[in-house]
Amino acid sequence: MKHRMVENAIGRFVPTEINGEKVMPFMGVGNYMPSGRKYNASISSSVSFPSDGNKQVKSLKGALIKAGLSDGMVISTHHHFRDGDLIANLVFDIAHELGVKGLVWFPSASFPCHQHLIKYLEDGTISRIEGSMNGPLGRFCSEGKMNGVAVLRSHGGRYQAIQDGEVNIDIAIIGAACADSFGNANGLRGNSASGLLGFALADSQYADKVIVLTDNMIRFPCIPWQIQGNFVDYTVEIEQIGIPERIVSGTTQITKSPDRLFIAELTAKFCDEVGIITEGFSFQAGAGGTSLAIAEYFAQIMRRKGVKARFARGGSNKYLVQMLEEGIVEYILDGQTFDLEGVRSMRENSNHVWTSPFTSYNYHGKGNFAGMVDVAILGATEVDVDFNANVVTHSDGYLLHGIGGWQNCLFSKTVILPIPLFRNRIPVVRDRVTTLCGPGELIDVIVTERGIAINPLRKDLLEKIKETDLPIKTIDELKEEAEMICGKMDSIQLSDEIVAAIKWVDGTLIDVVRKVKA
Amino acid sequence: MKHRMVENAIGRFVPTEINGEKVMPFMGVGNYMPSGRKYNASISSSVSFPSDGNKQVKSLKGALIKAGLSDGMVISTHHHFRDGDLIANLVFDIAHELGVKGLVWFPSASFPCHQHLIKYLEDGTISRIEGSMNGPLGRFCSEGKMNGVAVLRSHGGRYQAIQDGEVNIDIAIIGAACADSFGNANGLRGNSASGLLGFALADSQYADKVIVLTDNMIRFPCIPWQIQGNFVDYTVEIEQIGIPERIVSGTTQITKSPDRLFIAELTAKFCDEVGIITEGFSFQAGAGGTSLAIAEYFAQIMRRKGVKARFARGGSNKYLVQMLEEGIVEYILDGQTFDLEGVRSMRENSNHVWTSPFTSYNYHGKGNFAGMVDVAILGATEVDVDFNANVVTHSDGYLLHGIGGWQNCLFSKTVILPIPLFRNRIPVVRDRVTTLCGPGELIDVIVTERGIAINPLRKDLLEKIKETDLPIKTIDELKEEAEMICGKMDSIQLSDEIVAAIKWVDGTLIDVVRKVKA
Repeated sequence: MKHRMVENAIGRFVPTEINGEKVMPFMGVGNYMPSGRKYNASISSSVSFPSDGNKQVKSLKGALIKAGLSDGMVISTHHHFRDGDLIANLVFDIAHELGVKGLVWFPSASFPCHQHLIKYLEDGTISRIEGSMNGPLGRFCSEGKMNGVAVLRSHGGRYQAIQDGEVNIDIAIIGAACADSFGNANGLRGNSASGLLGFALADSQYADKVIVLTDNMIRFPCIPWQIQGNFVDYTVEIEQIGIPERIVSGTTQITKSPDRLFIAELTAKFCDEVGIITEGFSFQAGAGGTSLAIAEYFAQIMRRKGVKARFARGGSNKYLVQMLEEGIVEYILDGQTFDLEGVRSMRENSNHVWTSPFTSYNYHGKGNFAGMVDVAILGATEVDVDFNANVVTHSDGYLLHGIGGWQNCLFSKTVILPIPLFRNRIPVVRDRVTTLCGPGELIDVIVTERGIAINPLRKDLLEKIKETDLPIKTIDELKEEAEMICGKMDSIQLSDEIVAAIKWVDGTLIDVVRKVKA
Repeated sequence: MKHRMVENAIGRFVPTEINGEKVMPFMGVGNYMPSGRKYNASISSSVSFPSDGNKQVKSLKGALIKAGLSDGMVISTHHHFRDGDLIANLVFDIAHELGVKGLVWFPSASFPCHQHLIKYLEDGTISRIEGSMNGPLGRFCSEGKMNGVAVLRSHGGRYQAIQDGEVNIDIAIIGAACADSFGNANGLRGNSASGLLGFALADSQYADKVIVLTDNMIRFPCIPWQIQGNFVDYTVEIEQIGIPERIVSGTTQITKSPDRLFIAELTAKFCDEVGIITEGFSFQAGAGGTSLAIAEYFAQIMRRKGVKARFARGGSNKYLVQMLEEGIVEYILDGQTFDLEGVRSMRENSNHVWTSPFTSYNYHGKGNFAGMVDVAILGATEVDVDFNANVVTHSDGYLLHGIGGWQNCLFSKTVILPIPLFRNRIPVVRDRVTTLCGPGELIDVIVTERGIAINPLRKDLLEKIKETDLPIKTIDELKEEAEMICGKMDSIQLSDEIVAAIKWVDGTLIDVVRKVKA
């Protein structure tokens, strides 16, 4: 494939067209202003729906046929079931059985369980994936085996793309642990409980046809309606939509690695000493082992100081739930529940609030929640000396992770990346990131086991740490230290072929991923 | 004003244009199929909003100026504060002070407290009202004193009109008992608690500019967010937005009139004997004295039979709350809270669910809740021998009431109108209703103190009552009885001039209201 390439505002060369559609290059944070109007779905009428509200059809196949499944359509699913999802595979098994070709799969994310779909990418049932790819599908894509170019978006960017009509979903399939025949649905109750369904919100609102699939059909009304039946065309009950133990973990665990625990402790200490952990503050940490440890250290500091957090952003987990129940966190504003305690808490506690990419992250709304978070603790596969960071590819060029809410969280007041200085003897702090997912100007602090680097733009933080004994270094010092230990890495050689596009939160193109040389 | 008139599908002559906009005549229930697309608001960007989420401006005047208030705009408010609303008057005081002219006021309903606005209708600040008018404004309109033609819609019809782009709101002002500076808002807590804010939902979603006004600004996050801050442009705190005792009543009371109690008892008896009151049934009754009595008789029957209702639709009140708390009603799906007990219950009980005209009533959704309700108990000012009913005008032609959710509820499985046969010696059952708001084919049963008439279309009900001793009569018999007592009424003479249009739930024109001859 030949692409006309332009240099975007952060120095990456990107094409002006992806999969035959024009795209805008990244113009710098806050520099692109949309001028269009939101996507306007066609007007429905109650006349076309059963007067008693019962939209149940016998099988998913039946529903897909009624929804008009045909060649080239955009089919969306959500990833609340994570690696326990049974739905996407089932949908494309049916599509394959029906001989439908050239579908675009538009998941909110994909997981190793979706390796099953590689055969459909190979036989043309699916032409390409627009969505984050964790594991085998990413590898498949990296090796240039997918027909089209993958498009990766953040959770907020996915909402934006749907809302703005960049992606028109033909059929959305929404799996729910609990639903009624009208289509009201939630993820709170049932064998396949996933907590919430926020990643499917935009799909329900904007898709042409919406199918709700459940293994727990209850009588109207299904309360709460995280998905509103008024957006739903068909409902289907099947035996099983997810594998419970892979949907949510029974046991999210804090890291036991001494290095990671050290990084976590240092991160919490930094937040304390620069005055972030004060009465009424807010924070967001992930559900990885280091993040969990940071949250625990936060809790210890809060108890010691006698302060409460006004809110914490989820991914929720048992540690966060404990803090809510103890009263040191007033609200959890949750985007996904990572363990059973998260699901239980969301079901029982009205202060454990389900959010969506619309409320939390949509950059093309009238603001969103991200900017209200005092500190966001995020990960990265690589960071460069300009504080730019990568979350999707490894240093060998392989696309193995999704963006998630990562780009969106960069708008928090302080963004901290606690990362090891190197992994498997490969430096994490580098001259230049393999793939640029987040501009350095939004990344404030890098915490490693060998020191903390503060973005020179954050003069306020540099001032605040002066009185502390925190091990502050420059980002260049960290990079040199990494290279001293691991040796300087040769930059990897990738093919010219573009296999994936990385969108920024406003729909512009911030970078591309190129095919690895086998 | 001259209008080209056509006869619509129910025999009423209606114009093809209202206020310079083309309108479709009513085509019969379920016969009009929309072909367009939903209204698409322009795309916003977070770039235009404060990065810390604080959208608070100092005054409502300031917010209105920032929102670009200018001549001819459509300004919306909601009626959750009922006769205690202070906001609409304030908004137009400011508009008047700023010298803005020709505004269209688009409230979800108006109340006697809005009599204050008559001077602005007279001086041209407001050109017309699109919305239900209770009392003085209705009288003003009936007398032909409003510049434009009023347009009355049901709650569902108002959502439909906004969604479909029939009405484009320039500025929505949403009053909330509780809000944060980002614009998340609810009606649950604070001096001006109104329970919920569903009538403002469409306004928040589709208006060009949205202002949230509160007298109780709290720290982010305002939970629950019945209105989502992501739709909100500006937030304002003022001293007082409503007069508590006129927003919700401390004491909704069952009728003490023997006639009305008899009608209520007969209605409940009918529902019992035709088999409506069975395990898991659902019902909707209003908050008028007779409706409250019916709900209480329902409760007695349910206790006697040992059955539970799956859900009851609100307007909630202390009687319904009692049934919820007693466990004979599993859920209240509520559209507005009529008393303090309703507000308390909605705040405390997760089975007391806030709904909106979108979920409940929007006819241009993928279905709505109305059709799932087993029995709806509604009122009427007049009913005719074809079971057509009027809810907006009195028999003297005066427009004194709004449509509310009445038209929408006609889609319930069984619709019963418990009405007195006459009021003030004027028959309620007549040859022909003054204004036709609801087609007789959707109205199943008329219960009066002198007998019950069943719509001949409901052969099933006619069959079921055969074994009972219920006092069944034909509608003609009821009419004759009324005329025997009151004398036959001369049909009133109205002017040709059209002062108000009555929309059907699908946006077509079902009837018009004509100027009364003074």
